[in-house]
Amino acid sequence: MKPEREQPLFRETVTMQPENQSSPVRWIEDWMTPDDLWYRRNHYAYPESPPTDLQVTGAVRRFLTLSSEEIRSRPARVVVAVLECAGNRRTLFHPRVYGVSWKEGAISQAEWTGVPLRDLLREAGLDSTAREVVCWGVDGTREEKGPFARSLPLKKAFHPDTLVAFAQNGRPLAPEHGAPLRLVVPGWYAMASVKWLNRIEVVTEPFQGYYQKDDYHYYPFPDRDEGKRPVTVIHVNSLIRFPDDYSVLKTGCHRLEGLAWTGKGVIKRVEVSVDRGGHWHPARLLQRPWKHPYAWVQWTWNWRVLQPGRYEIWSRAVDTAGRMQPLHVKWNRKGYGYNAVCRSRVHVT
Amino acid sequence: MKPEREQPLFRETVTMQPENQSSPVRWIEDWMTPDDLWYRRNHYAYPESPPTDLQVTGAVRRFLTLSSEEIRSRPARVVVAVLECAGNRRTLFHPRVYGVSWKEGAISQAEWTGVPLRDLLREAGLDSTAREVVCWGVDGTREEKGPFARSLPLKKAFHPDTLVAFAQNGRPLAPEHGAPLRLVVPGWYAMASVKWLNRIEVVTEPFQGYYQKDDYHYYPFPDRDEGKRPVTVIHVNSLIRFPDDYSVLKTGCHRLEGLAWTGKGVIKRVEVSVDRGGHWHPARLLQRPWKHPYAWVQWTWNWRVLQPGRYEIWSRAVDTAGRMQPLHVKWNRKGYGYNAVCRSRVHVT
Repeated sequence: MKPEREQPLFRETVTMQPENQSSPVRWIEDWMTPDDLWYRRNHYAYPESPPTDLQVTGAVRRFLTLSSEEIRSRPARVVVAVLECAGNRRTLFHPRVYGVSWKEGAISQAEWTGVPLRDLLREAGLDSTAREVVCWGVDGTREEKGPFARSLPLKKAFHPDTLVAFAQNGRPLAPEHGAPLRLVVPGWYAMASVKWLNRIEVVTEPFQGYYQKDDYHYYPFPDRDEGKRPVTVIHVNSLIRFPDDYSVLKTGCHRLEGLAWTGKGVIKRVEVSVDRGGHWHPARLLQRPWKHPYAWVQWTWNWRVLQPGRYEIWSRAVDTAGRMQPLHVKWNRKGYGYNAVCRSRVHVT
Repeated sequence: MKPEREQPLFRETVTMQPENQSSPVRWIEDWMTPDDLWYRRNHYAYPESPPTDLQVTGAVRRFLTLSSEEIRSRPARVVVAVLECAGNRRTLFHPRVYGVSWKEGAISQAEWTGVPLRDLLREAGLDSTAREVVCWGVDGTREEKGPFARSLPLKKAFHPDTLVAFAQNGRPLAPEHGAPLRLVVPGWYAMASVKWLNRIEVVTEPFQGYYQKDDYHYYPFPDRDEGKRPVTVIHVNSLIRFPDDYSVLKTGCHRLEGLAWTGKGVIKRVEVSVDRGGHWHPARLLQRPWKHPYAWVQWTWNWRVLQPGRYEIWSRAVDTAGRMQPLHVKWNRKGYGYNAVCRSRVHVT
């Protein structure tokens, strides 16, 4: 699907206060999302000035104050990972839910360079009472709910791929994406990947911040909070890049294309159906999933369709953790983690 | 809804072959759509080279061949007009229809400068057998269905506001918008406003081109062509710019905002309901419709909401031709002319 000449691609503006804009994921051919086409998801206005340093505080033996230059001079690690907003595909829930109206574009991929968070935690030295690691951004400092902050359990905080990142696709982080330092938590929905990081606080009790305790939970009921569960690991998911939903195609051979990703294990296979799930055909994967476990995989499947008519093209991904995209998902009040089988309805003429 | 700092606004990419991208109409505060945020709707690839001249041929007394410089040197007329794709809001039809998946962004507004088409027709001199005026673009010249071409009845072709336009918002037309010359047919859906205009042909029989005879008709039935009617005049319509559908608001005072437009008469009033049509409140219009009859009108209404809950905000426009946006529209197979009452569902907390 090469554009016929040099044409700019456009993200969709979803909200402007704060800025929330999607990535044109269906139109980007590169495996890595170009920086200027990254989706943007903010809870607050952009910080007026970037944080000047990063503190490691709380239940540690030794407080650290590090400049971003100091972070950059340490041994770094490079990880390719998608960041996906927990609300991606939210508009597909029935009944519909309130919140930023994301369709499929609240996801992008980059190669991240950063220092493993555990290196900083080890240097500070955790007290034996340490329980969680709270990461604070500077956005929202003056707001009622306070700055954006999220905690990680020690296990995830100490995972070698959880990074204090300073570069995206080999370039310093852009101001909109958290410069100078942001957290990148591969495999988790992106609310965990705190931007404009200025404080890492080791705490001895579960963190009670709004974005940790109230927001970013699966609430199974519309009007009561019973049974809520925190949003963490990315669900196994896929999208169909071509053809577009409700588009018109001619009979003949078509190369169906899409993406698949997961936060647990890696993508094991992607299957395509053109008869509403009657038969599932294995798609070809263009990347080897084990090589970059947090990355999305591009897939293709050649569809020969000689009979005009109305078809539904479905895609579903399966991961090595034994998860498969379901035909229907459980509804949740805030509309997180939607990962039902993808559908593109086409009229073949 | 001022962006909190200088932020680019993004159109949404709908298709790339040919290019179809929407305008972020909900986010543009200017009455006139900035050139780079205009929606783009194409049936074909962009022409490899722009037309070199404009011919007036067919059932005329004298053939004309005019360069765009000659057109530009003639007495010009300036008209403010929206161009709206007939498929705008198509995705709202139930059952859904096939075609380019436009939501609300297949509409933009500009100040057009051009020579009335009738001046050229008068100069050429119509034969008494003349019946329609076919306008040919150069896009699609090598395609099976031939170049994009549309005919106008003589009455519309001779309307003083039907222009052979050479400037958009005071600047020469951009290549994506039909340079050097395009037709602008105010009040009609934009398929009539042929881009890359190179031939005006006066014909003595109804034009049988694909885009005239088959496409751009309201087909009332899913599987037969009975009762089809051509798409012409823009329906009375509106959109809600703020608040977004399925967004969350706090209790208090909110300035609801939107746009309204029509292709017949002018906007007479816009009404807003916050109780699913139980009561309709007159909105304030920010422009005087008679001054620019083909333009959209910005409207606002202050909503004081003290009771948390789930609300539906509805808007409907009424024009001086006696037309009002209906609660439900008649379905048509190709999804044209959708103009049901606009709805924004909000959760007030």
